[in-house]
Amino acid sequence: MNPKTLHQISYGLYIITASNGDKINGQIANTVFQITSKPPTLAVSINKENYTHEFIKEGRSLAVNVLDRDTGMVFIGRFGFKCGRDIDKFDGVKYHLSPLGNPILEENSTAFMEVRIDKEVDVGTHTVFIGEVIDADILSDGEPLTYANYRLVKKGKAPKTAPTYIEE
Amino acid sequence: MNPKTLHQISYGLYIITASNGDKINGQIANTVFQITSKPPTLAVSINKENYTHEFIKEGRSLAVNVLDRDTGMVFIGRFGFKCGRDIDKFDGVKYHLSPLGNPILEENSTAFMEVRIDKEVDVGTHTVFIGEVIDADILSDGEPLTYANYRLVKKGKAPKTAPTYIEE
Repeated sequence: MNPKTLHQISYGLYIITASNGDKINGQIANTVFQITSKPPTLAVSINKENYTHEFIKEGRSLAVNVLDRDTGMVFIGRFGFKCGRDIDKFDGVKYHLSPLGNPILEENSTAFMEVRIDKEVDVGTHTVFIGEVIDADILSDGEPLTYANYRLVKKGKAPKTAPTYIEE
Repeated sequence: MNPKTLHQISYGLYIITASNGDKINGQIANTVFQITSKPPTLAVSINKENYTHEFIKEGRSLAVNVLDRDTGMVFIGRFGFKCGRDIDKFDGVKYHLSPLGNPILEENSTAFMEVRIDKEVDVGTHTVFIGEVIDADILSDGEPLTYANYRLVKKGKAPKTAPTYIEE
């Protein structure tokens, strides 16, 4: 098996946000996908070690923020390679809270989708969270960032906890 | 909720093949994604009405064939908008069978990944099939077709059974 083959799967790049009481957090993810159209249902794979995993487990909802193609690497690095246990990732970031308390980004994002979790699938290192889209809107006419663009143009890496991490 | 928001999620475009005894079939899908890296595990959402769904249920494996960006619309139409109950989709197509009996395309494909199904998640209209990648290789240096390219450049539509179908 050639592990590089897995890079032939196409993805976008998103910030998944969640809340637990008055605490909020967010992290980068690429494995967001729609699995049924009626009702519109999304699935998101999150590493069990990640702080956001705890928040989704407790809060039973999440928001998908679609990153804009022009998002800078510093912004991506803050949400992708730092931990919300150590820093307040939202310090200085423009956002508002949804009625369910999840952060909706007001910068570097082309759209958001909020999901109420109906089902969790334990897949070893990760949990696949599944749920219906209860709110969604387009926020700008920017183009969504793809994972290919992130890797090839921005020279971005995957953290070790990503579902698509490949040892180099 | 603005249903067009769902189009902001990025995907590739694939032909999912499967076998049942000496019968083979294949269909277009866009919701293929890696959900863990150790072991490399994929998830694929397939409509319960689709003929390929029966094959995966019975055969307990599938192959993901990554479509090349230059694939013609006639080829895509054959696998995406026709049913293997009515026609032999592989008539005239270059392919070979994997050791598990699943068709591996030898044209219009940049790579393949074969998956043994470990888990199925019933999500209403669709089943999400989950399993470990047991074989995978890159077949050409072509660029994978993205769903955005299919929709925007090739003006391709989604069939009504697609997880990402949106009524226009």
